[in-house]
Amino acid sequence: MLSNKLQLFLCCILLSPLVLAAADGSQLWLRYDKVTAAEAGRRQIRSTSSGPVALMAKAELDDYWRGPAVELVIDKKKREYGEGYQIKWTGSGLQILAQQDRGLLYGAYHLLRLQGEGKDLRGVDLTEIPAYDIRILNHWDNLDGTIERGYAGRSLWKWLELPTQISPRYAAYARANASIGINAVVLNNVNASPDILRPDYLLKVKALADIFRPYGIQVYLSINFSSPKIIGGVKDSDPLNPDVSTWWKNKVKEIYRTIPDFGGFLVKANSEGQPGPQDYGRTHADGANMLADALKPYDGLVMWRAFVYNPTTEDRAKQAYQEFVPLDGKFSENVIIQIKNGPIDFQPREPFNPLFGALRKSSEMVEFQITQEYLGFSNHLVYLAPLFKETLDSDTYSDGKGSTIAKLTDGTLRPAKKTAISAVANIGEDTNWTGHHFAQANWYAFGRLAWDHQLSSEQIAEEWISLTFSREEQLVHAVKEIMMTSREAVVNYMMPLGLHHIFAFDHHYGPEPWGDRKGGRADWMPWYYHNADTVGMGFDRTASGSDAVSQYFPPLDEIYGDITSCPDSLLLWFHHVSWTHRMKSGRTMWEELCYRYDAGVQQVRELQKAWDRLEHQVDSQRFAAVQSKLKIQAKDAVWWKDACLLYFKTFARQPIPYDIERPVHELEDLKKIKLNLIHHN
Amino acid sequence: MLSNKLQLFLCCILLSPLVLAAADGSQLWLRYDKVTAAEAGRRQIRSTSSGPVALMAKAELDDYWRGPAVELVIDKKKREYGEGYQIKWTGSGLQILAQQDRGLLYGAYHLLRLQGEGKDLRGVDLTEIPAYDIRILNHWDNLDGTIERGYAGRSLWKWLELPTQISPRYAAYARANASIGINAVVLNNVNASPDILRPDYLLKVKALADIFRPYGIQVYLSINFSSPKIIGGVKDSDPLNPDVSTWWKNKVKEIYRTIPDFGGFLVKANSEGQPGPQDYGRTHADGANMLADALKPYDGLVMWRAFVYNPTTEDRAKQAYQEFVPLDGKFSENVIIQIKNGPIDFQPREPFNPLFGALRKSSEMVEFQITQEYLGFSNHLVYLAPLFKETLDSDTYSDGKGSTIAKLTDGTLRPAKKTAISAVANIGEDTNWTGHHFAQANWYAFGRLAWDHQLSSEQIAEEWISLTFSREEQLVHAVKEIMMTSREAVVNYMMPLGLHHIFAFDHHYGPEPWGDRKGGRADWMPWYYHNADTVGMGFDRTASGSDAVSQYFPPLDEIYGDITSCPDSLLLWFHHVSWTHRMKSGRTMWEELCYRYDAGVQQVRELQKAWDRLEHQVDSQRFAAVQSKLKIQAKDAVWWKDACLLYFKTFARQPIPYDIERPVHELEDLKKIKLNLIHHN
Repeated sequence: MLSNKLQLFLCCILLSPLVLAAADGSQLWLRYDKVTAAEAGRRQIRSTSSGPVALMAKAELDDYWRGPAVELVIDKKKREYGEGYQIKWTGSGLQILAQQDRGLLYGAYHLLRLQGEGKDLRGVDLTEIPAYDIRILNHWDNLDGTIERGYAGRSLWKWLELPTQISPRYAAYARANASIGINAVVLNNVNASPDILRPDYLLKVKALADIFRPYGIQVYLSINFSSPKIIGGVKDSDPLNPDVSTWWKNKVKEIYRTIPDFGGFLVKANSEGQPGPQDYGRTHADGANMLADALKPYDGLVMWRAFVYNPTTEDRAKQAYQEFVPLDGKFSENVIIQIKNGPIDFQPREPFNPLFGALRKSSEMVEFQITQEYLGFSNHLVYLAPLFKETLDSDTYSDGKGSTIAKLTDGTLRPAKKTAISAVANIGEDTNWTGHHFAQANWYAFGRLAWDHQLSSEQIAEEWISLTFSREEQLVHAVKEIMMTSREAVVNYMMPLGLHHIFAFDHHYGPEPWGDRKGGRADWMPWYYHNADTVGMGFDRTASGSDAVSQYFPPLDEIYGDITSCPDSLLLWFHHVSWTHRMKSGRTMWEELCYRYDAGVQQVRELQKAWDRLEHQVDSQRFAAVQSKLKIQAKDAVWWKDACLLYFKTFARQPIPYDIERPVHELEDLKKIKLNLIHHN
Repeated sequence: MLSNKLQLFLCCILLSPLVLAAADGSQLWLRYDKVTAAEAGRRQIRSTSSGPVALMAKAELDDYWRGPAVELVIDKKKREYGEGYQIKWTGSGLQILAQQDRGLLYGAYHLLRLQGEGKDLRGVDLTEIPAYDIRILNHWDNLDGTIERGYAGRSLWKWLELPTQISPRYAAYARANASIGINAVVLNNVNASPDILRPDYLLKVKALADIFRPYGIQVYLSINFSSPKIIGGVKDSDPLNPDVSTWWKNKVKEIYRTIPDFGGFLVKANSEGQPGPQDYGRTHADGANMLADALKPYDGLVMWRAFVYNPTTEDRAKQAYQEFVPLDGKFSENVIIQIKNGPIDFQPREPFNPLFGALRKSSEMVEFQITQEYLGFSNHLVYLAPLFKETLDSDTYSDGKGSTIAKLTDGTLRPAKKTAISAVANIGEDTNWTGHHFAQANWYAFGRLAWDHQLSSEQIAEEWISLTFSREEQLVHAVKEIMMTSREAVVNYMMPLGLHHIFAFDHHYGPEPWGDRKGGRADWMPWYYHNADTVGMGFDRTASGSDAVSQYFPPLDEIYGDITSCPDSLLLWFHHVSWTHRMKSGRTMWEELCYRYDAGVQQVRELQKAWDRLEHQVDSQRFAAVQSKLKIQAKDAVWWKDACLLYFKTFARQPIPYDIERPVHELEDLKKIKLNLIHHN
């Protein structure tokens, strides 16, 4: 009998999903062991609130908290806390004080994080108040289960199974978001199917909303502006047509009947082929306000995307500004203009979008992209907190020095009904959620910065590493170095010095600076952006060119507009620069370009070395997975370098400096590479 | 009219094959411009001999010599000159003095070489006597036009066209050989078709021999030992069967009737499936002597290959020695035993073959391989003079200290009827003859070393570079550095520390240390050679292993047999060495292995840099061709390094030292690579 029992025991250990899960990344940064019954007996966790979100806070502590007694207390008078909280050492235990139940939940996750980091909590007294009211993930998930620009498998949302079949991952997803303060999600792609508003789909959405609610998460939907015509039987979708606005009012009423805490709509209109108010000669404001009217009775919001551009002769980088600035003051109070961080499209590096600060009477929010559409998909390790911070900390000078994008959007400089920050998610059905183990850090970093944009990239990395891998000091340091190097590395090996959008057509994975398609839109062609010729390279956006610099407030217009003051990192963004132009380094532009590309390659090789050194400090499963991805990244970096240098060399007509590692590819061979990557999931 | 003339002139320049040829490598090292009629008028070239070879010498000087008057003089009494010559400044001109017409021809090419190198010839007085009587290329060309281990296109010999249609390349080939002193060629593959001895083929051979004769080149043939049975209608091919020896005698008579200066036979017998005397229970001596008897009346020779081994339990490296040493003294005077430089098979590095010096009463000759079967085909730049020299300068100690292989085979230590040296050619129908422009240097180097094995690799490189590219000092130095590095580079990235034969099956291009085939011969499997296990790696050829060391003369048997005295470069050839064995560098064996592979990769990258620096000093056509090949080599070096280190790591169970550039491949992906390279032309 003993022997049988022993066998059973061993069998359980070997087959236990908990044991296996430890190394597959499925637990994300929430690698907490459940407390034993004995541990639970030694501890007290009490809550003065019994709402579902407060109960969730208590349940999480019940399951995972190993410290002293914790008291969850609601104080309705602390209005300044919003969704924030105070954590205080009471002498014998801890108290989480909040104004709302969500504050208790975020406080509980904060406690667990501090426990995970191994912090001593005696004497603690901290108060945390989120920077933004709405901290929202945008999923570009299609109803057919694919994800636009998704690199972690197919969509988490199983629309065919919903609402009757409920995946356990829905709750796990909501929990992960809540643990980093994310309180809202847009479930579907901005290139939206009208079907999402059909009654049967709304029931599926409701099923998800019901699961997300105890985690403090509100659901939003992307809508197709032509829905009234397509699924409503209305003659058209003209926002000034009373039948159209009536249809939307009825639809919104139906939604709120189904999902009482529904958040609102995200709209991509008159952009890249999507329908919109301009189809009927109306403005973006006409369209947004019509929807806002329908949502207003329920406190719902419209997030209206400023990502609009047309294949005109005007510089694409200028068009959103030109479109929206004249409409400033015309948007309803519950409309927020959602603006991509840069004026083009989620490039490895862009200057900030000049719309930030330019709209003085309209609410603005940032749209980041966590999914790595232009950053090597889920193959490349790129820690994005530095990119996010670079935008948020950018000083627009709109209201004088110190008018950072963070302050313009978080309510500091421009009071707003609701402040918000968004990012396109990188989440799919892969076991590790994000395809690359390190891509989890970008989800984490977005949540943490949406909560507190003053956190440093290093701090966030340290937290994430401690929770996700180990809090062993040397490992934390080494992994942090990897993460902190990674963004400059990718800029270097893909698009240094302000180069942008020289990606392969459509899939945006590899380099294609030579890219061209007969009859294609100029603004989708790499040559449109790099403008390489025998004189030099870069997009002249000075007064003598497209004059995009004039969209920036002084003194930025002059700083960017003057080749001597424009930062190296944005030089080819704003200037057409001669190959022989002398850079700050003393090198010519061509030489500098070569050294940057080479530096990118060498940096990735250093990332490989640094990771390999951790072989015995990281579980073998995640170690091998990351090691394997880094190999791809190292090969891709060489591919990028060779492709760009060999191609631009045909214009520069100068040798690649001879102390630089030589190309190993032939340009003609690289031109033949055609990846079949139209669908990414 | 003037305009038309100008057009015509430009047209001629643009279309002139001479101008184009300048950069395609077709001229090899013979890039001499023909003298103009005016130049020819200012010069006198006279010859006392009017034999066809002497006339060829005069014709070459007539065409290309720009210096003072030259007198070609035969002095029959100077027997010690053999095929050598004296070049002497007479006060007003130059005299080439020789005992035979061939001496005049070699002297003429020497003059042209000195002119090409830009040497001042006033006061010159030099005497050159070739080290070997027979300086022979072995072509492994098949009658169907393919070449075994040929990487420069198909065979030069157009058997279908011969004897009626004569390619101008036959004479160009003979001239190139003559210019470096090569005086004999074996036309066909050692895996010989019996058809070569059919009367119609002998007429084709005669056509070639007639073209080669004025260049002082004799023709030899590889024969199939079963020819009497297969094409002669004899019952068998038993060398002791009188019908067989009669058949051969008649066949030889027929050959000499057709080709009076025919050289003799090269024989691969009882080796890798070829027929031979052992098929009838006879010895190699029985077989060789039977053929030697037939050839003797005509002063013909038998070159009998010692490259024999069988899939027994005996170490392959020992078998040739075991087979031939007991036969020492049994071979006829006109038999030379042709021995590959190493005991296995033309590896990037081998110790010398212990048969050298072990046969005391038999003539021995070296067989080198110019074609790069195991050295990256015609894709890798590998200058082979250092490899050839390494063998020739090896001290066997057979007759005491100083018994180098050069001295054992050139007649110094062992008087011989005829001395000889051979190498497997790398020549095909490619425009540049050898596939890689730098592979021309290996053909050149073999010829030069066959003439004078005391030349240094550097001297030969300098000559070849000056003639082939430019005599500009800085360029000569830079290219010489590239060439001199290249052999150690290939050893490092393919098989450092004495590793050998871990190539992919059959085609021998890429790495396949994991290679194995069910039912295949053990001695064709990489594991047979590397013997990697958890303890260590290498072939134990000490007394406790196969005892191959005992085939070497003292003190080499002890030096090689003792792990502390065995040179690093041969360590894994002679020893099974623990992964943790401390090397002379202070590193463990595993670490040293890693550093060597990495060094190989870095060395190739340096070759790339060095070559690219010459971009404006080398014509663009050859520059680009070599640059392109170096890219392949650089990628292949990484492939080799990754494959070998990732595979051996599974045994060593230790990390690749972390300061070394990390692998970019997955072992499992590398294992899937199957190149379709069975036929190489």
